[in-house]
Amino acid sequence: MLTNSELKYFSSLLLKKNRQTEKKFIVEGTKLVEEGIKSDFICEIIFTTNHFAENNPSLISSLVKKKIRLEILKAEQFKKLADTDSPQGIAAIFRFSTSRISLNKLFDENMIIYLDNISDPGNLGTILRTADWFGVKNVLLSPGCVEIYNPKVLRASMGSVFHLNLIERFNAEKLNDFVDKHFSLICTDLYGKNLYEYNFPKHFVLIFSNEASGPSIEIQNSTRERITIPKFGKAESLNVASAFAVVMSYVKGMK
Amino acid sequence: MLTNSELKYFSSLLLKKNRQTEKKFIVEGTKLVEEGIKSDFICEIIFTTNHFAENNPSLISSLVKKKIRLEILKAEQFKKLADTDSPQGIAAIFRFSTSRISLNKLFDENMIIYLDNISDPGNLGTILRTADWFGVKNVLLSPGCVEIYNPKVLRASMGSVFHLNLIERFNAEKLNDFVDKHFSLICTDLYGKNLYEYNFPKHFVLIFSNEASGPSIEIQNSTRERITIPKFGKAESLNVASAFAVVMSYVKGMK
Repeated sequence: MLTNSELKYFSSLLLKKNRQTEKKFIVEGTKLVEEGIKSDFICEIIFTTNHFAENNPSLISSLVKKKIRLEILKAEQFKKLADTDSPQGIAAIFRFSTSRISLNKLFDENMIIYLDNISDPGNLGTILRTADWFGVKNVLLSPGCVEIYNPKVLRASMGSVFHLNLIERFNAEKLNDFVDKHFSLICTDLYGKNLYEYNFPKHFVLIFSNEASGPSIEIQNSTRERITIPKFGKAESLNVASAFAVVMSYVKGMK
Repeated sequence: MLTNSELKYFSSLLLKKNRQTEKKFIVEGTKLVEEGIKSDFICEIIFTTNHFAENNPSLISSLVKKKIRLEILKAEQFKKLADTDSPQGIAAIFRFSTSRISLNKLFDENMIIYLDNISDPGNLGTILRTADWFGVKNVLLSPGCVEIYNPKVLRASMGSVFHLNLIERFNAEKLNDFVDKHFSLICTDLYGKNLYEYNFPKHFVLIFSNEASGPSIEIQNSTRERITIPKFGKAESLNVASAFAVVMSYVKGMK
């Protein structure tokens, strides 16, 4: 039985400041809850509505077997945990993952993604989903990026947040450590070399910037290489998540 | 001087049913208004706030030269026309374009895009922006697609709605006319041929479907060819606007 003060506590995690203090976040919806349970994130509690539990008996019984605390809530209680207008009726609380990879391990990788002030949650979630599709493992996020545990990021990522090594609040200055290890820093913007003619080096950090403001000063100062997706029509720019998809497709699929 | 009843009339265009009756739509923000003015869409009236006009004198004087009716509104009047919480202070009313290209002309093209029930306005706008970047000209939209004059579509398209030949409410059955003219219908989904190994025919209609429900029955029945973006990681699917960007990049840039 969930107490009122517990409900209040868990629903407080809809706010970033509480997530950051408690180091926990809410996910909502079947797909996200399932992906979270399958991952190495620690699940503290699962909530469902009666209606959802009745309609999804096999899912509920598989969750019960995991021995995670499960609470069945009234619809009006459940709504307090939900970020969407018409929630499916299942949600869960997970603890933040401690960073799942050390910086030293990253130096063994060929490609690292760095996201520079991506502030739109839909864009960030879509980028993470695309990264996951193309088999990217490691994504560093600048302090100016929207929080990965923001409900809109989680939704747009479709569970990919649970599959990737994500390191938040990674200062651009720290990219110099990669340069010392013979990584090239490659920035994607509107004034670089033609992507389709570009030969990627063996080790590189690929940087995508806020689409309204472009590469930050720190990135401009530290980056020598720039690549651009050639334009064939009239649009002034591409959406950053679309640009990310194009570059990933080239790097992973086409090269 | 704008009368109250005029203000009421123009702000009623924020609703789809009124746009469809009046065949007019509102655009908001400098970029969209400028793109609209440059296009062959007919602009009926431009609205600015005093604050915006004072801060953008050269834009305002260039608009005055166009001899389009210009009304300067109080901030609280302007808000009634705005779909966003903090509008920039410029908006305009345009008439729907009559279809800018005949079906017969389309038969001369090599590639036509068909959007099958794309219902998310952000996805549709992003797809149109990407189409415009890659020099796509002609996009047909099924009756189940969100309206192109929806304010969120316009914003995500970043003005690309003004650059493309868009034909709404195009029934999938009518794609047979293209088949008769030796076009291949190619559907992108999760179970097709490898995009990166696919040789596109000379004339084709490339179909992108609603990402939650996949290709509609009509498309399933009429389409023989299917292509897929190979998966390298764990995500279950790609966002449809990201998939569109990947395929356009391959068709226009990489082939």
